[in-house]
This record gives sequence, C-alpha cells and structure tokens, in this order.
Amino acid sequence: MGENGKDKRARAKGQSHRLQIQHEVAGGPLGIFGEEAKRHDLSLRAVMERIAEALKLQRPELEFRHRWEISKKEIHDRLAAIDSQLGKILFVENAEIRPDGGVIEVMDRFDQFRVTLVSESKHQGNDVEKIRAGIKQGKNKDQDLMTAGNAIERVHKNIQELRNLMLDEAHFPYVIFLQGSNFATSTFFVETPDERKVRIAHDAGNLNRIDRVTASSFGMEINQNYCRNIVVELDGKPQMLQAASLYFQSEPWTAEDMADALWNVAMTSLDVLSESLPIKED
Amino acid sequence: MGENGKDKRARAKGQSHRLQIQHEVAGGPLGIFGEEAKRHDLSLRAVMERIAEALKLQRPELEFRHRWEISKKEIHDRLAAIDSQLGKILFVENAEIRPDGGVIEVMDRFDQFRVTLVSESKHQGNDVEKIRAGIKQGKNKDQDLMTAGNAIERVHKNIQELRNLMLDEAHFPYVIFLQGSNFATSTFFVETPDERKVRIAHDAGNLNRIDRVTASSFGMEINQNYCRNIVVELDGKPQMLQAASLYFQSEPWTAEDMADALWNVAMTSLDVLSESLPIKED
Repeated sequence: MGENGKDKRARAKGQSHRLQIQHEVAGGPLGIFGEEAKRHDLSLRAVMERIAEALKLQRPELEFRHRWEISKKEIHDRLAAIDSQLGKILFVENAEIRPDGGVIEVMDRFDQFRVTLVSESKHQGNDVEKIRAGIKQGKNKDQDLMTAGNAIERVHKNIQELRNLMLDEAHFPYVIFLQGSNFATSTFFVETPDERKVRIAHDAGNLNRIDRVTASSFGMEINQNYCRNIVVELDGKPQMLQAASLYFQSEPWTAEDMADALWNVAMTSLDVLSESLPIKED
Repeated sequence: MGENGKDKRARAKGQSHRLQIQHEVAGGPLGIFGEEAKRHDLSLRAVMERIAEALKLQRPELEFRHRWEISKKEIHDRLAAIDSQLGKILFVENAEIRPDGGVIEVMDRFDQFRVTLVSESKHQGNDVEKIRAGIKQGKNKDQDLMTAGNAIERVHKNIQELRNLMLDEAHFPYVIFLQGSNFATSTFFVETPDERKVRIAHDAGNLNRIDRVTASSFGMEINQNYCRNIVVELDGKPQMLQAASLYFQSEPWTAEDMADALWNVAMTSLDVLSESLPIKED
C-alpha cells in the first residue's frame, strides 16, 4: 500500500504487533512461520493451521485438535446440559457453523475438548483498490466511493453461536479480522491514476461499518484481546460478558499480524483453562 | 392461503392466539383494533402504533413513548454506566438502530424511560407465491424452489444492540416475526397452476433458515414469550440470559396474531418492572 493509503493508527498498532512477534519468532513457537509470515496473502485458514502446529510444539504435553465446523447439535447439547429448556429446537438436523479459520481445541484433564481459539476474517469495501485503478463506482459509474452495504451484520450470528457453545466457560477466544475501506480506523487519502486525492473517511455514515460490528464487544476499544471474560456487577450480582476480539483496519491483515493476535488469544485461553489442563510431566 | 399451503403447527398456534385475542378484544384494551385487526396487510409498524395506544388506555396512570430509532450513543452511555471499559468506541457519531416496529417505553418512578416492547418483522423465501403463480426459479428458471439465502443472519445485530441497551434489566421484550417459505415450521405442499404439488420441507438445509436465527433464543422452543430473563446456574453462580422471542411461520403474520404476541410481551415487561413503576393513584 502506498504512503497515502496508510491507516496511521492501525499502522502504529501493526508495528507494535510486529515487534512482539519478531521477539517471539526469534526463538519462540511462531518460528514455524519463518519467511512465510511476511507474505500478505497467507489466508487466515493457513495461519490458523500454523498456529495449531505452533501450539503443539510449545505445549507437547497437551492434545490439540483443529476442526472446520461445529454442528448446531453439539451447541444445543451443551446448552441443554446447563438448563433443560435450552438447546431444544433444531429444524435442519445436520446444521453446522463454519468459522473460516476453524476452531482449535485442547483436551482437558477430564478428557473433554475445550475451545482454545476460533477465528474469522471479513472483507467489506473495495474503494481503495477501485480509486487506485481509476474505476468509478455506483449505478452511473460516476462516484469515487461506493455506499457501504450491511452484509457485515451477519458476523454476529456465529459469535452468538460460539457464545452459546461456551456459555459455561470463563473465556471467549473469538477473533475476527475485518479489512476493507468500510473498516478504516482513521481518515486517509488515496490517489487516482490522474493524481486526484480521494478521502476515505473513518467517521462517515455512508462508508464506515465498524459500528455495525462492535455490539459483540460491548462497544469496547477495538483491536484488543478480550479472551478473558469480563465480569460486571448488575444489581449487586456478577454477570459474565463474552466479548469478541475484533481487529479492524482498512488495509489487508498480514499473516504476521494475524498470527500475533491469534497467538495472544490462544495463550490467554490456555491460561484461563490452566487448572483444568493435564499436569505437565517432567 | 389455500388449504395445501397451510403450516399446520403454526395454524394451531394461531388459532389459540386468536381465541385469546378475541377474548381481550371483546371488552379489553385491544378493542382499539376492531375490524382492522382482521386484515392481513396491516404492517408491524401500524400494529405497534395501536399497541402503544392500547397501553395508554389500559394503564392511563403511566407515561409511554414510542420511537423509531435508538442512537448507538445512548446504548454506549448505558453500557459505560455499568462499567467504564464498555461503550467506549463509536466511529459514526450519529449511528443508530431502527427496529422496524419501533421501541415502546414506559416512564418509571425515577423519571427514567424503560424499554417495554421492541419488535421487528422479517421475510425470507417467496417459494409459495412463485409456485402458485407457476413461476420457475433459479439461474435457468427451471426450479420450483430457490436455494435459501443467508440475509436473515443480519437479524442478530439489533438483538445484540438491544441486549446491550438492556444489560442491567431483568426483562428483554424483543419480538421478531419471521415469515416466508424459509421459515416453515412443518412440511406442506403447494399446488402449481397445472395442479402439480410441490413440497415445502421444514427440515431441508437448502430451504429452512430457522436454525440461523435461534442462537438468539439459546435454541429454546420457538413462538413463545421469553420477555422474562432466564437465570441459569454456572459454576454455582447465577447468569442471566436475554432471549429474543422469535415467532416463525411460512404464511404472513396477521395483525391479530402479531398484536396478541406483542401484547403478551408488553404485559410481561410491565409485570417485571412493576416495582419500579409509579404507584397507581385511585
């Protein structure tokens, strides 16, 4: 991406991520990425596969599994085990959910798999690419910017499904990477082939869609790890909140930055679960 | 709708609703509907306006208001009042949500408006109408049935927003009416103009989309009032669950059936809120 196309706040964040990951890559478990991690086009799926490998290397005493779908029946069984009025109704018997990064689980000392990491990646808004290429948008092909759509609102569904699957857990390791011009975290300019500068606003209602997603993190600061559930006090009683860890930026997420955020969340999961995990034999 | 197009389970449910509402209409607050309530085409918005009027008639000592949008800023302010790390980040300053039936609130004895009723209506799947009209569907216009889409998954967003707005309440009066061939609750047949019978399956993965919505009611039985929050026990501690009241059927919801479900939920809200409401002066 050219200098003008940079989202400065996200870039600053990205740089701090990069320092962290380089530290870990130097001799740590993410060394499995090597040069590959510098590629922009490594899919979330591929990154998650490497995270699963790195977890096995880092914690050889634990059993991990990585799967691509969870059946609604499994979610309902877990709900029903908590309260018999929950998880009762299923219309399509083999209904399932498929977060695109899959689900990594760890076996606990009671022989139960516990969710350690779930991830998805979403893209919305191609304005930067279109402006750079000099392609006008809209019905009459005369606009620099396309009015943002609402498809991203579908993201809440799988978050809700995972919240149900993990209703009785103290952690919620759901990471979503959102990229595209609808997710700019600060305003920047993009240059057209004829050297006109077009403004990509981060605070315009026709362009930014971050606010359509943040209900699932209770409007907390974005680009942070919320794996450890938050407990608030309601009428004197504790209430546990499951918040998604939402990572937004206009430019594509690199494998390095995704790996860094995912690794941190997985480490938090293992920390929260530590008392339930098998004891390390030395 | 013809006899063949009836969704029997939903119809039985509808009939019991109708008995209830007739009882109430006879001399009760919903008499405000009169003959109008028998029309199929009264919009949810119009039904909600009449519900608001009926509430004022039924409880003249209370102050109600009915509005069509809630700003995200208001949601964030409420979240932040519970815990300062919540409700912090807003990108589009005037972002708001607009459930299509609007939001009815009641003033409590502390001069605060409390949410009493929120509703939305959704439609997905036109197979019944197309089959009856003899119109084939799909890319090559050679199919009786159209593979169902996923747009309905967007429904979770506003539910999530309202959950946040009402995080510290003991009730959650969110009612959604879903209709269309993607929401059939039992299998039925529709006749084509040339007297062929086409099966609308309630359990086929290419047609039914109920399972894409029920995460917001924790997979509980559908077509029920879940206004009163459910409390489950997690690790010995109570956890409050906010469940949407989801009403599904393939045929269009009548004004009568919508009014009945909405009235029941509003009554539950006023019951849960009763200790916070102004004392009736006689």
